[in-house]
Amino acid sequence: MPAISPDRLLSDLRHLRSIGAQGKGVVRPAFSAKDMEARRWLKARYEEAGLESTIDGVGNVLGRSRNPGKALLVGSHSDTQPTGGWLDGALGVIYGLEVVRALAADSSTKALAVDAVSFQDEESRFVGCLGSRSLIGELDADIEQAAVDKDGMALADALKEAGLAGVPRLQLSRERYAGFIEAHIEQGPTLEETSKRIGVVTGIVGLRSIRFTFRGQQNHAGTTMMKTRRDAATALYELAHRINQEFPKAAAERTVWTMGRLKVEPNATSIVPGYADLDLQFRDASDAPLDAFEKIVAKLVAEMNARGGVKIEATPTRTPIPPTKMNDGLRKHLELSAEKHVPGEWMQLPSGAFHDAGFISARLPSAMLFIPSIGGISHDFAEDSRDDDIVLGCQVLADAVASALRAR
Amino acid sequence: MPAISPDRLLSDLRHLRSIGAQGKGVVRPAFSAKDMEARRWLKARYEEAGLESTIDGVGNVLGRSRNPGKALLVGSHSDTQPTGGWLDGALGVIYGLEVVRALAADSSTKALAVDAVSFQDEESRFVGCLGSRSLIGELDADIEQAAVDKDGMALADALKEAGLAGVPRLQLSRERYAGFIEAHIEQGPTLEETSKRIGVVTGIVGLRSIRFTFRGQQNHAGTTMMKTRRDAATALYELAHRINQEFPKAAAERTVWTMGRLKVEPNATSIVPGYADLDLQFRDASDAPLDAFEKIVAKLVAEMNARGGVKIEATPTRTPIPPTKMNDGLRKHLELSAEKHVPGEWMQLPSGAFHDAGFISARLPSAMLFIPSIGGISHDFAEDSRDDDIVLGCQVLADAVASALRAR
Repeated sequence: MPAISPDRLLSDLRHLRSIGAQGKGVVRPAFSAKDMEARRWLKARYEEAGLESTIDGVGNVLGRSRNPGKALLVGSHSDTQPTGGWLDGALGVIYGLEVVRALAADSSTKALAVDAVSFQDEESRFVGCLGSRSLIGELDADIEQAAVDKDGMALADALKEAGLAGVPRLQLSRERYAGFIEAHIEQGPTLEETSKRIGVVTGIVGLRSIRFTFRGQQNHAGTTMMKTRRDAATALYELAHRINQEFPKAAAERTVWTMGRLKVEPNATSIVPGYADLDLQFRDASDAPLDAFEKIVAKLVAEMNARGGVKIEATPTRTPIPPTKMNDGLRKHLELSAEKHVPGEWMQLPSGAFHDAGFISARLPSAMLFIPSIGGISHDFAEDSRDDDIVLGCQVLADAVASALRAR
Repeated sequence: MPAISPDRLLSDLRHLRSIGAQGKGVVRPAFSAKDMEARRWLKARYEEAGLESTIDGVGNVLGRSRNPGKALLVGSHSDTQPTGGWLDGALGVIYGLEVVRALAADSSTKALAVDAVSFQDEESRFVGCLGSRSLIGELDADIEQAAVDKDGMALADALKEAGLAGVPRLQLSRERYAGFIEAHIEQGPTLEETSKRIGVVTGIVGLRSIRFTFRGQQNHAGTTMMKTRRDAATALYELAHRINQEFPKAAAERTVWTMGRLKVEPNATSIVPGYADLDLQFRDASDAPLDAFEKIVAKLVAEMNARGGVKIEATPTRTPIPPTKMNDGLRKHLELSAEKHVPGEWMQLPSGAFHDAGFISARLPSAMLFIPSIGGISHDFAEDSRDDDIVLGCQVLADAVASALRAR
């Protein structure tokens, strides 16, 4: 049986943290000098582990096993949020490296083929999941050409600066791979709250969003009587509150919705607002609650528009992300391994956040494993997990990878 | 009987409009070069009309009658909003000038004492109703010293630039005056909607305002389950909508309330907001609905806070402006004059907007007359009134001034 090395695992995770460290957190956005430094370091670690290693034309680091036969791809992303935590992405990347090393060191598993990967720009500096999209051939040229970061820098310039202009881009071969497994911190409190140490992801939630616009009439807040007002903010408050009252009736256990961005014009205490807009975003692991929400929204908007007054429009604001089911076969190997190491202390759960596995699953059978986030905190310097959870997750993954490859 | 000159009235109004004209509107904020030019022009017109005329140390223009006996003060303000209409303030100022001229030209009224006034900065470039506050001795030194305009210019520097530093400031003498009458455009649609040509103001509405703060917990919009969220915006939507549902039950016919300014942090589509704030402003001509509103707010906030979750605080954001009743005696003269000229086509109404008369009434018996605003529009370049309404309003005022002074 393969045995991971806790010391080597934690030591490499901490080394990766040191590249771009700021206090307890990490600043290593995609294509930054620190990000590229981390990718070169990782390429060298992959090679030390016996893999044939490449940084491709968008910055993905891929380490390929020299063993014959179908391979499992294991990894995540090593870029971070602008002010990110030390484990988001990095955990799954170093797990991939450690699984390769553990399997290579054990006579029963050294012939198995495991590839390790670090995807580029999962965190959306330019394009969310840029690297995994590129690897499955789903990075559209027009999206790539239009991509700029929040400071206005073009993706093409970032590629050039990172020394990646003209470097070949890899594509994942369906023939080579038996599947993909991504480990990640949960980024939510569910495992911690239920005292579970491993989460096996059933699917990645789908996401839809709607922008509402409210067009009324701007007026003097002293002289315009209530009955003649067409107050855009009043309509916004009503619609938002009624959505919050109606959605729970159609929600599944883990459906979430958020109205966290809005604008009111002119946004002055003494002026009846003439215009407002509001974003609604909703997520679930199955389409049914999302479909039901869209019907509720359509009904509320139609009812409010029928009164006259403020004119409400509802427009989808992005291509919906469909819910993605994880592969049952790969999932079963993760579950058996978790049950072996921590019987009864693992659970199935959907991922409320999006991940590279959401894209890769369009090409390869995919699965995900979560370890607990302390306080459910992520996208923050304070993000952390317990050392014993980090070690446990890697061992559960190593055993699952071995059993999945052996089962072929 | 005094007869105003429609041509002279309209010609002077249009001349005043030309000082700072932009398209159909006027840009003549307090203490600007155009504002001071208009005030010097007005001083000269007052002198031509036989008044002893002064620009005081805050820019008020006061023209004093040389006739003995108690005087009536008639006027308004000649400063405008940053992008203002041509009649807001200017109408009442030129009415004052024309009433002086009309009464002086008629043998039955030429001995009556009428003073004309243009107050400074009614429109709050530095301090709302700066001029009328100063004239009644209610311009606090600390407010004056702290006053800056939206570009950060200090009031003291504006006074210096306008040549007013060190110029004496006038105070209104209770002994000299029988009262004050201010004519103004309505700035709302009530007269137009009810086909009335004159409004006699019963009082100026009181105004109170409350700032709500909502303190919750910022979180990831995908991984934070609904039942564990403390979403500041959700609480804001609920409170605002419930206020809009409860207030009508306690409102009087012309009570108004507005929630036109808010902030949500971090105001991002994918983040559960951790903080929000919201301004509520409410106005009525009597205290009863305003008191009732405060009770409703306290009850809703207490009820929502009792649930835990988001912590709501409600804080008054300014010294309440108490409702002001206009003087019954002066009001009666306006009503009799209106009924003589347009029987049945005038009405009593409260003023939903604040005016200099609100301050002057603390010192002198005060009354106000409104003429219709086309479409109820004001504080906009499109602000306008019909010529025949402008002429009628001035004649109604002239007769009321004459009868009020004769009645003494």
